[in-house]
Amino acid sequence: MSWKGRTADIERPPIAEINALASELEGQGRDLVNLGQAILGLPPPVKAVERVREWIESTSLHVYAPDPGQPEAREAVAGFLRERKGIEASADRVILTCGANQAFVNSILAVTRPGDEVVLMVPGYFDHDFAVKLAGCVVREAPLRLEDGRYAIDIEALEAAMNERTRAVVLVSPGNPSGMVATRRETERLCEMCARRDVWLVSDEVYDLLTFPPVSHVSPASLGIHEKVIVLGSFSKVFALASWRVGYYAGPADMIEESIKVQDALVVCAPVPSQVAAMGAIESVDAYVPAAVEALIERRDALMDGLRGWSTVEALAPEGGTFLLARLGVVDDVEFCKDLLRETGVVTVPGSAFGAPGCVRISFGNQPAERIAEACERMRSFSA
Amino acid sequence: MSWKGRTADIERPPIAEINALASELEGQGRDLVNLGQAILGLPPPVKAVERVREWIESTSLHVYAPDPGQPEAREAVAGFLRERKGIEASADRVILTCGANQAFVNSILAVTRPGDEVVLMVPGYFDHDFAVKLAGCVVREAPLRLEDGRYAIDIEALEAAMNERTRAVVLVSPGNPSGMVATRRETERLCEMCARRDVWLVSDEVYDLLTFPPVSHVSPASLGIHEKVIVLGSFSKVFALASWRVGYYAGPADMIEESIKVQDALVVCAPVPSQVAAMGAIESVDAYVPAAVEALIERRDALMDGLRGWSTVEALAPEGGTFLLARLGVVDDVEFCKDLLRETGVVTVPGSAFGAPGCVRISFGNQPAERIAEACERMRSFSA
Repeated sequence: MSWKGRTADIERPPIAEINALASELEGQGRDLVNLGQAILGLPPPVKAVERVREWIESTSLHVYAPDPGQPEAREAVAGFLRERKGIEASADRVILTCGANQAFVNSILAVTRPGDEVVLMVPGYFDHDFAVKLAGCVVREAPLRLEDGRYAIDIEALEAAMNERTRAVVLVSPGNPSGMVATRRETERLCEMCARRDVWLVSDEVYDLLTFPPVSHVSPASLGIHEKVIVLGSFSKVFALASWRVGYYAGPADMIEESIKVQDALVVCAPVPSQVAAMGAIESVDAYVPAAVEALIERRDALMDGLRGWSTVEALAPEGGTFLLARLGVVDDVEFCKDLLRETGVVTVPGSAFGAPGCVRISFGNQPAERIAEACERMRSFSA
Repeated sequence: MSWKGRTADIERPPIAEINALASELEGQGRDLVNLGQAILGLPPPVKAVERVREWIESTSLHVYAPDPGQPEAREAVAGFLRERKGIEASADRVILTCGANQAFVNSILAVTRPGDEVVLMVPGYFDHDFAVKLAGCVVREAPLRLEDGRYAIDIEALEAAMNERTRAVVLVSPGNPSGMVATRRETERLCEMCARRDVWLVSDEVYDLLTFPPVSHVSPASLGIHEKVIVLGSFSKVFALASWRVGYYAGPADMIEESIKVQDALVVCAPVPSQVAAMGAIESVDAYVPAAVEALIERRDALMDGLRGWSTVEALAPEGGTFLLARLGVVDDVEFCKDLLRETGVVTVPGSAFGAPGCVRISFGNQPAERIAEACERMRSFSA
């Protein structure tokens, strides 16, 4: 490379390596079971697609929407936040984006200056790490605390990672790859700490409605403790609309106003047909989500049951999301995932992609229960 | 505002003000003619929409595409670059994005570090200014040279704006708002200078096929003079697909590889239905573009003719794009545009939004010739 830009400081997670190997094996005619991608392998709500079809039929000029989104899409998201998450939201405090990653980037760029610091919890989502570094900011990591078979927010670890340059703390709940859903008490304590220190709390809630009873998701924005909370959401996970790239964020009025500058420079506006799909999805919550969660629980159970007979891994029961994290008896998780893939045809993701070396993330959202059971049978025959 | 992030350094262009006034007047029942937005006010190619319809019918799972784009979409763009722009492009050097703005952001983030400098030509496109500042980089402005009734690239001014921190020079041709199309000779000299100084040349070509004969667009990537050229393109302008938010960039292999990290963090991938629309658009070039340019020329002529009788402005004949820049006899172009809008109902954009104070950008792409003629009649009755 003849130049060194800021991307040189970013190491791509080993997922590309695994995917390349998977493609190679597929090319050889191997029957793979993909337990890699963190998605819901179901068709999206019928109404989401139907609304887009109608929009196409009724649209002649395909022009830009206002930067923050179509007024009716902003109102639909605000209504969703009020009704489903208990957040006092209004349309003028919502911006539609090209997926939740863009919502995260908009948020970080709006609340930081280069050189500022952002605290991420680990294990965590690598794109947040990328985005903070691309913004010219410094990532500080605070470990989650593993206790009683679940990950918990460690307020002391967070405080230890903070200093006068800290501008934001990022919460991902349900957590990727941890499968953790922050409890109400944890969320309250986190809000109190952020309020006391006057730092932004960026709350990534892309798996919000995908939780397993009795656990349910509590948004920090619903608690009324801290003003500076930015909520990020997505239609890719809960509504299986990943291909449409549509998400949103909601925050205080001045933050939303400032961040429109970022929105204009990055994408102008979210794709309009995707905004239409999002509105159709929101109309479908009652018809769609309970059945999706039921399917997800069946898949989760198939994976948990299937892993029980495999001494190589120790799986953590997930509280939400579409995957679980399992601890390995071996250290090199990248080699483990490659060997597993080569020998059994099962695709998983090395934990070191998420700051969890010695672990493996296994997704259950993407495959029917029978395929998961079959994958487990194959995996049980494998010992690292 | 209780915090000061990097957006505080960015002043939003006065377009929002004009739009707010326009909405207010529209609310009062005023008949407005919008000569503000820089778009082609025509329906997109039939095939673009048709392809999306077919894709919707044949798709059950709406999953992510690979980060850089669907393989067939990347190949389609590469073919377009080879056949229509004479660029030796291959699919693996193309990345589909959520519009050309995102392509610009990806490029800047991949080739700079915070504190680096980027040279922009003025008058120029404000979102480039925003994006460079958001990246934590420094904008250096180099004026275009006005001679013989057109804007020209001023190599000496560019060199004067450069120093050892300069990482990139940005060319927008056809230029917004200048209407300039860089000549072959200008483009060669620009490439030579960038090669000599080893800086990136980011070439925004979103209006590429919208030029007025005998003028045509020459991409610096087609000349074989400089390796470090990044070409940005869009389907919003030439193919009237703005609502779908789809664009692309093409560059050297190592730059493309590095920038995938940015792509993943920002949007994961371009919206898949939008990639499908883009492929349909590319198939339609021969059927669609000549007629679009013909309509555009008719509209341009209506505007140029109509402005001739109006002593208040001196219009520059555009060589490409969907607008022209006109010089005013008055200094305060923002007040001028507001007064013009209030008195005549014609929406225009103040030049100071683009670093051209005392000017006004008047778009002709967005309205039929008769409406433009009518707008001119109204404008001629107005004297600042």
